[in-house]
Amino acid sequence: MAAPPAPAGPGDDAAVVYATSGSLVVTTDILVESRHFRLDWSSPYDVGRKAAAQNLADVVAMGAWPTALLIGLACPPATRLTVTDGLADGLRDECAETGAAVVGGDVVSADQLIIAVTALGDPRGRAPVLRSGARPGDTVVLAGTVGRSAAGLELLRAGVTTGPLVAAHRRPTPPYAAGPDLARAGATSMIDVSDGLLADLGHVARASGVVIEVDADALAAYEPAVPAIHRLTGGEDHGLVATLPPGAVLPSGVRPIGRVLGPADPDDPAGPEGAAGTVRVVGADVPADLLGQPGWDHFGAAGN
Amino acid sequence: MAAPPAPAGPGDDAAVVYATSGSLVVTTDILVESRHFRLDWSSPYDVGRKAAAQNLADVVAMGAWPTALLIGLACPPATRLTVTDGLADGLRDECAETGAAVVGGDVVSADQLIIAVTALGDPRGRAPVLRSGARPGDTVVLAGTVGRSAAGLELLRAGVTTGPLVAAHRRPTPPYAAGPDLARAGATSMIDVSDGLLADLGHVARASGVVIEVDADALAAYEPAVPAIHRLTGGEDHGLVATLPPGAVLPSGVRPIGRVLGPADPDDPAGPEGAAGTVRVVGADVPADLLGQPGWDHFGAAGN
Repeated sequence: MAAPPAPAGPGDDAAVVYATSGSLVVTTDILVESRHFRLDWSSPYDVGRKAAAQNLADVVAMGAWPTALLIGLACPPATRLTVTDGLADGLRDECAETGAAVVGGDVVSADQLIIAVTALGDPRGRAPVLRSGARPGDTVVLAGTVGRSAAGLELLRAGVTTGPLVAAHRRPTPPYAAGPDLARAGATSMIDVSDGLLADLGHVARASGVVIEVDADALAAYEPAVPAIHRLTGGEDHGLVATLPPGAVLPSGVRPIGRVLGPADPDDPAGPEGAAGTVRVVGADVPADLLGQPGWDHFGAAGN
Repeated sequence: MAAPPAPAGPGDDAAVVYATSGSLVVTTDILVESRHFRLDWSSPYDVGRKAAAQNLADVVAMGAWPTALLIGLACPPATRLTVTDGLADGLRDECAETGAAVVGGDVVSADQLIIAVTALGDPRGRAPVLRSGARPGDTVVLAGTVGRSAAGLELLRAGVTTGPLVAAHRRPTPPYAAGPDLARAGATSMIDVSDGLLADLGHVARASGVVIEVDADALAAYEPAVPAIHRLTGGEDHGLVATLPPGAVLPSGVRPIGRVLGPADPDDPAGPEGAAGTVRVVGADVPADLLGQPGWDHFGAAGN
């Protein structure tokens, strides 16, 4: 993706960041060792890349171009320099994938290693793509990987420490360019998949007041090497899921996986089923363990 | 100070913040319980106000108007709701003093209470005021309180828990309006006093390549109720110190406390003393304990 104007980080009281079009998007996340990452499973460099990636993915999910990252690092006094250097290198290199730069930060001493990341992005004059704009008739589309991080985590827990799924858990590769591409293609809503596809589509369905139907078979064809349960519920790959209006041209790397329906109309028993905010899974490939899980009830996931 | 356009925090992947003039300033700090604050000395509400204040002061020290705050909160699972509510109320109310708003955040579980604050500000078309612009002939001016927080901390350590100095430690009151006012008055450099007046003027002197002379007697007249050592070395009041060119009109509440000199010229033994980056303290009121402290050598503080 094209690089935005270079931000200035003068080491002053605050950094100066350009915002070319009168607004910007900003997001923050806080990551705690042994809760959000483990240094026995991931290198400090990979933790740095992942910490940046999850915030940069939030920026592109608004259709904006990442411009700047700020880092707050709390670490125990005994933290080795190889750890902090690795984190810093990973944060810097993941930023570089998007044209953004680390422009500021703060380092303090604490009992536990904690990384606070704030990411800024420039929507370049386009209205940010929110979760609330999905409309009946839209196509649900996906970019990037889904479920690989969760599958990799399962392998790590089982003692497997190599292979592409484990690598995907250690260092997700969000489809950064697809965010602005989908905004340009007219995306009516967008979100990055951080909680799991069904959970995140639930956020969109509720914010938009619609029913979202996921085609489990299209999803299986999209991501065949991942168990169905992880495709539907695994987060942290930070793929992008968006809704596009009829007739929109799909950007490169983007594929349809479902559709948006209106909520059920009690006067039209032949119309679509489900209350606003519902996510339904259709197709032959709905995993049995999903259907039985009470945890998914509030997302209204239902096979047929 | 006039309120900037209200930022939007839609609870989406990221918040949307207005930046009216093509750039913004942004700063981040991370605060750790028992290192940066103590809940047995300060209420959660005051800790929230202080956490916001120190970041908002960094924004106004650039001459910008604060617009938005993002909060990352890590807290032990047993943290009482009165603590998190108090923190949130304090953060919100301190923001409101400046016209800014909390637009986003993240809450996670951790072993220790940690608050990561990111503040954004709008320079409204004016170039941000950096540390590097002080010029020989400028006047050094101060706004807000100085040394009261350090004096209050000393009292708390001695078991005194009430009074104005203790209150100043618990909840600093940065002179927010003075930041944009000083920028408008033509400030050539500005910094908020967070490390102590001599230390922060040292940052300005080094970044600007000048010698800064502080008039200890003017400072004593400015802040008479505070011991001299705290006036010169106490941080965390988040007053603003700036340099103004000859002929500038001092904004309300701003008073001169020193002057900017060029570095010593070896060919002009009658010229100003001191190497670039030096801070000198002149006047009758230089505390003896400052002169003997080797820690201040690198700021070049010298009485006469």
